[in-house]
Amino acid sequence: MSKTIRGIVPPVVTPLHEDYRFDKGSYEKLIEHLIGGGVDGLFVLGSSSEVVFSTDARRDEIVKAAVEFNRGRVPILVGVIDTETNRVIEHIKRAVDLGADAVVATAPFYALQTMTEVEEHFRLLAEASPVPVWAYDIPVCVHTKLPGDLMLRLGKEGVLAGVKDSSGDDVAFRQLALDNQDAGHPLSLLTGHEVVVDGAYMSGADGCVPGLGNVDPAGYVKQWQAYQAGDWETVRSEQDRLARLMRIVNVKGVGGFGAGIGSFKTALWLLGIFETNQMPQPVKALSGENIEHVRAVLREADLLN
Amino acid sequence: MSKTIRGIVPPVVTPLHEDYRFDKGSYEKLIEHLIGGGVDGLFVLGSSSEVVFSTDARRDEIVKAAVEFNRGRVPILVGVIDTETNRVIEHIKRAVDLGADAVVATAPFYALQTMTEVEEHFRLLAEASPVPVWAYDIPVCVHTKLPGDLMLRLGKEGVLAGVKDSSGDDVAFRQLALDNQDAGHPLSLLTGHEVVVDGAYMSGADGCVPGLGNVDPAGYVKQWQAYQAGDWETVRSEQDRLARLMRIVNVKGVGGFGAGIGSFKTALWLLGIFETNQMPQPVKALSGENIEHVRAVLREADLLN
Amino acid sequence: MSKTIRGIVPPVVTPLHEDYRFDKGSYEKLIEHLIGGGVDGLFVLGSSSEVVFSTDARRDEIVKAAVEFNRGRVPILVGVIDTETNRVIEHIKRAVDLGADAVVATAPFYALQTMTEVEEHFRLLAEASPVPVWAYDIPVCVHTKLPGDLMLRLGKEGVLAGVKDSSGDDVAFRQLALDNQDAGHPLSLLTGHEVVVDGAYMSGADGCVPGLGNVDPAGYVKQWQAYQAGDWETVRSEQDRLARLMRIVNVKGVGGFGAGIGSFKTALWLLGIFETNQMPQPVKALSGENIEHVRAVLREADLLN
Amino acid sequence: MSKTIRGIVPPVVTPLHEDYRFDKGSYEKLIEHLIGGGVDGLFVLGSSSEVVFSTDARRDEIVKAAVEFNRGRVPILVGVIDTETNRVIEHIKRAVDLGADAVVATAPFYALQTMTEVEEHFRLLAEASPVPVWAYDIPVCVHTKLPGDLMLRLGKEGVLAGVKDSSGDDVAFRQLALDNQDAGHPLSLLTGHEVVVDGAYMSGADGCVPGLGNVDPAGYVKQWQAYQAGDWETVRSEQDRLARLMRIVNVKGVGGFGAGIGSFKTALWLLGIFETNQMPQPVKALSGENIEHVRAVLREADLLN
Repeated sequence: MSKTIRGIVPPVVTPLHEDYRFDKGSYEKLIEHLIGGGVDGLFVLGSSSEVVFSTDARRDEIVKAAVEFNRGRVPILVGVIDTETNRVIEHIKRAVDLGADAVVATAPFYALQTMTEVEEHFRLLAEASPVPVWAYDIPVCVHTKLPGDLMLRLGKEGVLAGVKDSSGDDVAFRQLALDNQDAGHPLSLLTGHEVVVDGAYMSGADGCVPGLGNVDPAGYVKQWQAYQAGDWETVRSEQDRLARLMRIVNVKGVGGFGAGIGSFKTALWLLGIFETNQMPQPVKALSGENIEHVRAVLREADLLN
Repeated sequence: MSKTIRGIVPPVVTPLHEDYRFDKGSYEKLIEHLIGGGVDGLFVLGSSSEVVFSTDARRDEIVKAAVEFNRGRVPILVGVIDTETNRVIEHIKRAVDLGADAVVATAPFYALQTMTEVEEHFRLLAEASPVPVWAYDIPVCVHTKLPGDLMLRLGKEGVLAGVKDSSGDDVAFRQLALDNQDAGHPLSLLTGHEVVVDGAYMSGADGCVPGLGNVDPAGYVKQWQAYQAGDWETVRSEQDRLARLMRIVNVKGVGGFGAGIGSFKTALWLLGIFETNQMPQPVKALSGENIEHVRAVLREADLLN
Repeated sequence: MSKTIRGIVPPVVTPLHEDYRFDKGSYEKLIEHLIGGGVDGLFVLGSSSEVVFSTDARRDEIVKAAVEFNRGRVPILVGVIDTETNRVIEHIKRAVDLGADAVVATAPFYALQTMTEVEEHFRLLAEASPVPVWAYDIPVCVHTKLPGDLMLRLGKEGVLAGVKDSSGDDVAFRQLALDNQDAGHPLSLLTGHEVVVDGAYMSGADGCVPGLGNVDPAGYVKQWQAYQAGDWETVRSEQDRLARLMRIVNVKGVGGFGAGIGSFKTALWLLGIFETNQMPQPVKALSGENIEHVRAVLREADLLN
Repeated sequence: MSKTIRGIVPPVVTPLHEDYRFDKGSYEKLIEHLIGGGVDGLFVLGSSSEVVFSTDARRDEIVKAAVEFNRGRVPILVGVIDTETNRVIEHIKRAVDLGADAVVATAPFYALQTMTEVEEHFRLLAEASPVPVWAYDIPVCVHTKLPGDLMLRLGKEGVLAGVKDSSGDDVAFRQLALDNQDAGHPLSLLTGHEVVVDGAYMSGADGCVPGLGNVDPAGYVKQWQAYQAGDWETVRSEQDRLARLMRIVNVKGVGGFGAGIGSFKTALWLLGIFETNQMPQPVKALSGENIEHVRAVLREADLLN
C-alpha cells in the first residue's frame, strides 16, 4: 500500500440499529459497496461518521469493524476529533492501536485561541503520532479557518501529510494548491465538497472525500479516473449528475447534520445497504415525506427502480 | 445544604505542575482561599477550569480533589462539557459517581444543528442525570445562543435547574430574568460576566460565576452581600474595583484562553496560592513583561505588596 | 444650552403617511411628546429614524422639521450614516447647515477594512465638522466593533465628543467607562440598550438613547433622575417596568427592523401620536394580530385604556 | 448589442489624482486597455470601483466617463450600491439617465432584515428600472447571502436578469447554476472570484467579473475563449497563471480593500496606465516594500520588464 493517500476516500457513514447500537452487518455491506465501487481509501470517524456523537467505546467499535472489513485493501484514515491536544492524542493512540494508517485532526475548538496555539497543537499531535497526521480544515464546525501558509509550512516540515479541505473557501484552496505545487507537493490535498469536485480538480486537488460517495461511490471513482485521463468533459458531466443527486439533502423542516447525514442514511436504507436510517441522539431520523423526497431523487438518478 | 444554588460560585481554576501533572496541593490551597473568602459553591470543570483541555482521567482527578477538599461545605457544580449527548451523558455519570451536586452542560457543538436537537439534548441529559442539570449558555465557545424561551420552558418542566449565563447578551439576560420571575422563578440564574455583575444583579441575577473570583473571592462575596442588603452603592463601587483588577488580562501578544486564564493563573502564582502559572498544552504560560503586568495590577489593587 | 450632551436622548422615530411621504404633523406631535416627557436631547436620523431608508432629500426634510419643532429647547444630534468618509462628510455639511448641534457617525461599512481606516475615518470627519462628532458603535449594523482604546484615544485628542453605544457588549462598555473616568471623562457615553439602562448607569453611563423612549419618554426621564439622585431601587424598578413594555417587539412572522421599529410606530399610532404605522419600503407595517399584540402590551403597561 | 451580458466583464477600477480628484485621462487609458484586451462588457461602480467611497457627484462623473470612452462598443453595467430601496432607486435613475445598459444591486444592508424585505427590495428596484436589474451577491460586504431559490424565482419572473456572484460559496453557485439550467437559463451568472473561474466554468458560469482583469484583461479573455471552445487544459493553465498573478495582493501591514484594490491600482500605475496609485479616503495608497512586491509579481508574470 502506497504511503500517499489520494483519489476517492469517502467519509464512511455509520449505520445504527433502531436502539442506537452500532449495526456491524450494515457496516460490512457499506464497506463492500465502497470498495466494490473502486474507492482508494476510507475515512472513518469523520464528521459524517458521527464522530462527535460517538462515545470512545463506540469510536473503537467503528474503527475495529472498518479495519476488519477492509482486510487491508485500502488505506484507512481515522478522524481523531476532539476539543484540545491531550484529548486528541488519546484518540490517536487508540486509533493507531486499532490499525489506522493515518489520523485526521481539526484545529482545537471550544476554547478561544490564536494561531500560535493552533500551530503548536498540530506539532504536538505529530510528535505523538506514529502514523501521518492530516489536517481537517472545517471552520463551519470548529470556527477556525486554517491559514494556507500555516498548513504549507507544517507540510514542508513533515508535521502534516495532507489536508482534508471542508473549508468552503475555494479561493484559499486554489492558492494553497498552487503554493503546495510550487513547494514540491509536500501535502496531499483532498476536497470534501462533493458538488464542486471538478473545480477542485481544476485547482489541482489530489482527490476527494465525498459524503455523497457513500451513496454513489462509482460515480466519484469514474470522475476521478476521467480527471487522471484529462477527460474534463466527463469530469464535468459526472459532477453535474452527482450535484443533482445531492438534492436528496433538500428535505423540509430538518437542518444541519440531520438533513445531510440523515438523507445519506435514508438513501443507503432505501438502497438496501442499511437496515434503518436511524440517527444518533439527539438527532431524529428522516421520516414521512422526507423519505419520499430521497426516494424520488434516487429514482430520478436511476439508482432506484 | 440547600438544593438551590445561588450566590458566588467561582469557576475553579486548575493548577498544574511544570510537567503538566495536576497540582493537588495548590488546588487544596485554592479551594481554601475560595471557601475562606465566603463563596457559596464551587463550579468545577467549567471553561475556566480547562475542561476541554483535560482528558477524562484528568477530569476525574479534578472532581475527586474538589469533593475531597470541599468536605461538604458548599455545593459543587461539575461541568460536563463535550460535543454531543452520549458523550455528555458519560461525563454526567462519572461526575455524579464522584460526588457532583449538579452538572452543567452546554448546547451540543461541532455538528450543525437546529434548536430541535438542542432541546432534545437537554431533555436526554436530564433523563440520564440523578442530579439537577444546569444549562451553560456560552455562544462564544459553542456558537449557539440558547434562546430564553427554550431555557424557561425547560425550567418550568423541571428539565433545567438553572442557567450559567456567559452569553455576553445582557439584553437577552434581562428578558430571561423577567420572564423567569413572572413564571415563579423556576431557574436559578448566574452570570459569568465578572465585570458587569452589578448590571446582572439589577436584572435579578441569583448570583455570579466569576473567573476573577479565583483571585479575589472576598470581593465578589462582599458585592453579593451588599446586593442582598440593597446597598447598591457598594455593589457598584465594588464592581468598579473588581473591573479595574480585571485589567490583569490585558497582556500583550497573547489572546483568548491564554490571556484570560493565563493571567488568573499568574495572579494566583504571584499570590502564593499556585506553585506555577503553567497552562495546558497547546497554550503557553505567560512570561516576561506579561507577568510584570499582572504583578503591577495586583499591586495597584493592594492585593500584593 | 450646555455643550455636554447627557441624560435621555431618544432616537426620534420618523412618521410616514400611507403613501410614504414624511408626516410632518405627526412628527411635531412626537417631538412635543418627547420634550414634554422631559428628555434632554433628540437624536435624529439614527438607525431607528430609518436613516438608511431615507434619501438625502428625506433626510433634510426630517432634520429641518426637528430643528423647527424643537425651537432650540434641547440639543439635536443628527445621524450622518453612510458607507465611507466622503459620503459621510456630505451629510455632516448638510446637517450642520440645517442646525445640528452634533453629528453621529458609525465606522465605515461595506468595504473590507482594518482599524487603520476606521481611525482615519473619524479623524477626517472631525476635521470636516464644525460641530462635535460622536461615534456610533453599532456592530450589528456595520459589522465593526469600535475598540475601547481607539474611542478613548480619539476622545482625549478631541476628535470624538461622545459615544452612542449600541454594541451589545456590556463588558467592553464597562471597561470603556472606567478608562474614560480615569482619563478625566473626555467622552460622553450614552447607551442605546433600553432594557438594561440600569446596568449601564451602574457602569457610569452619561445617559441613554432609548428607542422605546419614543413610546414612554417619561419613564426613561424618571429613571435618569432617580440615577442622578442615587435612588437605585427606582432605577431598577423603572427598568423592569420598561423592559416589560419592550415586549411590544415580540411580534410574530416579522423580524429585524420591521419588528423593532414596526412595533414602536404601531404603539405611537395606537397612542394617537402617529396617524399610521407605515414603514419605509421595502419593510411592511405591522398588521392583524401583531397590532393586537402591541395594544395588549400597552394596556398591560397602563399606557392605553 | 445583444441584450444578454456574458463573457468577461471586469469591474473597472477608478483612477484618482494625488489630490483625490477623478483622473479622467487614466480612466480612458484603462478602458482602452480593457476593450483592447477583448472584454465583453464593463462593470462600473462595483465594489472594486470604490462605489461606496464615492459621493453621488463622483459616481456620476465615473459613469459619464465610462459611457463616453466606451463609445457604445460593449454593454455597461452600473453598480447602484446603497443601503436601502429608495436610495438605490435614486442611483438607478441617475445611472440610466447617464447611459447604463443594466444596473447591479446588492441586498439591502445596515438595517436588520428578513428575506421578505430582500425579495421586496429587488421587486421594487425592477419596477423602478427601465433597464435590466442584476443581483450582486456579496455577503462579505452586505452580510446577507442571497438564497439560490430566491434568485432563481426572481429570474423566472423577469425581476432579475442576472447575478454577479461574489458569495465565496462555490457549492451554492453550483446548485444555482444547475437549477438555472433546468429552468431554461433565465439568469446570466457571472462569477466574481478571479482565481477560481475555471471551477465556475465547470459549474456553468456565463462569464466572469474579475477585479484582476483590470491588470490582465487578455488573460481572462483567452480563458473565456478556451472555455467556449471546450479547451479545458487552457482554461486551467491560464487560471493557474492568473492565480499566481493574484499574489500581488499579498502585501504586508495592509488589509481588506486597501490591499486588494490598492495592489490593482499599484499594478496599473507600474504598467503605465494610471498616473498614481492613490486610494480614496480613508484608505492609504500602497507604499515602500509593498510597491516593490507588486512590481516583483508583475515581473515574474512577464507583464513588466
